[in-house]
Amino acid sequence: MQVPVRIVLVETTHPGNIGASARAMKTMGLSDLALVAPRAFPSDEATARASGAADLLERASVYETLDDAIADCAFVVGTSARPRGVEWPCADPHEAAARVWDAIDADNRAAIVFGREQSGLTNEALARCMLHVQIPTDAAFSSLNLAMAVQVLCYELRMTGLRRAGLLEPAERAGRMAAGSEHASPAEPGRPRLATSAELEHFHEHLERVLVAAGFIHESHPRQLKLKLRRIFQRAKLDKNEIDILRGVLTSLDPSRQKPRRRSGS
Amino acid sequence: MQVPVRIVLVETTHPGNIGASARAMKTMGLSDLALVAPRAFPSDEATARASGAADLLERASVYETLDDAIADCAFVVGTSARPRGVEWPCADPHEAAARVWDAIDADNRAAIVFGREQSGLTNEALARCMLHVQIPTDAAFSSLNLAMAVQVLCYELRMTGLRRAGLLEPAERAGRMAAGSEHASPAEPGRPRLATSAELEHFHEHLERVLVAAGFIHESHPRQLKLKLRRIFQRAKLDKNEIDILRGVLTSLDPSRQKPRRRSGS
Repeated sequence: MQVPVRIVLVETTHPGNIGASARAMKTMGLSDLALVAPRAFPSDEATARASGAADLLERASVYETLDDAIADCAFVVGTSARPRGVEWPCADPHEAAARVWDAIDADNRAAIVFGREQSGLTNEALARCMLHVQIPTDAAFSSLNLAMAVQVLCYELRMTGLRRAGLLEPAERAGRMAAGSEHASPAEPGRPRLATSAELEHFHEHLERVLVAAGFIHESHPRQLKLKLRRIFQRAKLDKNEIDILRGVLTSLDPSRQKPRRRSGS
Repeated sequence: MQVPVRIVLVETTHPGNIGASARAMKTMGLSDLALVAPRAFPSDEATARASGAADLLERASVYETLDDAIADCAFVVGTSARPRGVEWPCADPHEAAARVWDAIDADNRAAIVFGREQSGLTNEALARCMLHVQIPTDAAFSSLNLAMAVQVLCYELRMTGLRRAGLLEPAERAGRMAAGSEHASPAEPGRPRLATSAELEHFHEHLERVLVAAGFIHESHPRQLKLKLRRIFQRAKLDKNEIDILRGVLTSLDPSRQKPRRRSGS
């Protein structure tokens, strides 16, 4: 079974981890690898660690920015080693895998994003994601290797895919009883495709422009407020039609454009 | 949370895999490592790959035979890369983890046994086990690294342990909610209380007033558009603080109130 989910590695420091991640992906039926500003790639070390998965490295896409790497994705999950300042929807890998499978179909792509070995994803990168996933490591030793984290997420994606396809039969029954959280089919059939990451970014830029024009956001403003607004709309899982409506709303309310209709009447 | 399960590595060829396995164990709260006839141990390579988990290597027990390594265990699970000639109870890692936790208590120990990198466990070794576990790798590429397999099993053991201890609650609850037709957001600890129905209604009335003032919604407009906007914000499950922010946004954008800041500047 193929698992149609993109793995995005951001600013990976050790090329060996890129190779080991490719191998981890391939054992679980994933093949779409994207690299954002890797420190060294291609690299002999990556190829050596990939073992029989060198074909994934050859076909890997390399990008300069995270935005480019996830531009066509409707659902983006960011891996986070620890809780951050701003609250964000957060799931464990089992639940995150379910949410990813809920989100993908012929029109909607999904990606899971992994940060640098030492520091993980920046808050800015995490703010691009609809969901954060945390592997529940032991508090006393949370030093999970990058490729190991890729392996765990790819494993959960594969398990959920097999379960939903009825290919894990005996265990699937036990799994349902134990976890109580299998199932979940995408709600709202006939809904337009979800907005891609790029479309969402354009909406957020538009929102910010209008709020700056209105004086609601000042340049000096703490980023907190923008993050909170972003969180609301990430959580809403907007579809393309809704993005169009909201951008229409923004255009109609933009103080730098509109004629003050009511004022002229009064 | 500690996971009181022994990991037994049989005749491991590459010492790096022993180190990486120790690290994988420690991230998941396991600490009991047993080595059966390792080709090289202790080893600098193992220590290097163990990263911060070198203490597990120092405390590891080394045995000559598998029987010695599992002598005090009541429940032994053997990892198997592929179906064998002899039928045997076999589970996936999720189910196997449940069976292990079922089996252990103060009097009963459990172990999971991993074979050699190239060849896995012998039929003789597998016959020592009460249960076989197979990680469902892709049929086209099943070359899972030994330490990756250790990581996956330790991860499932930890997840099951946390779940049973009620320590995965938030995600579990979110999973159940996601099963319905609502796009529920996973729990966000520390989040302000959700908005009440009345607060939501006041927000929607406010939104409508502003959009009418901006000319975006006309009296003659079909209700469809208002419904679509309502659906977006219902789906976002707004909390009280977010309602306040959004009403601040509306006030700042209300054409019937604001001074056209940018216009005066241009």
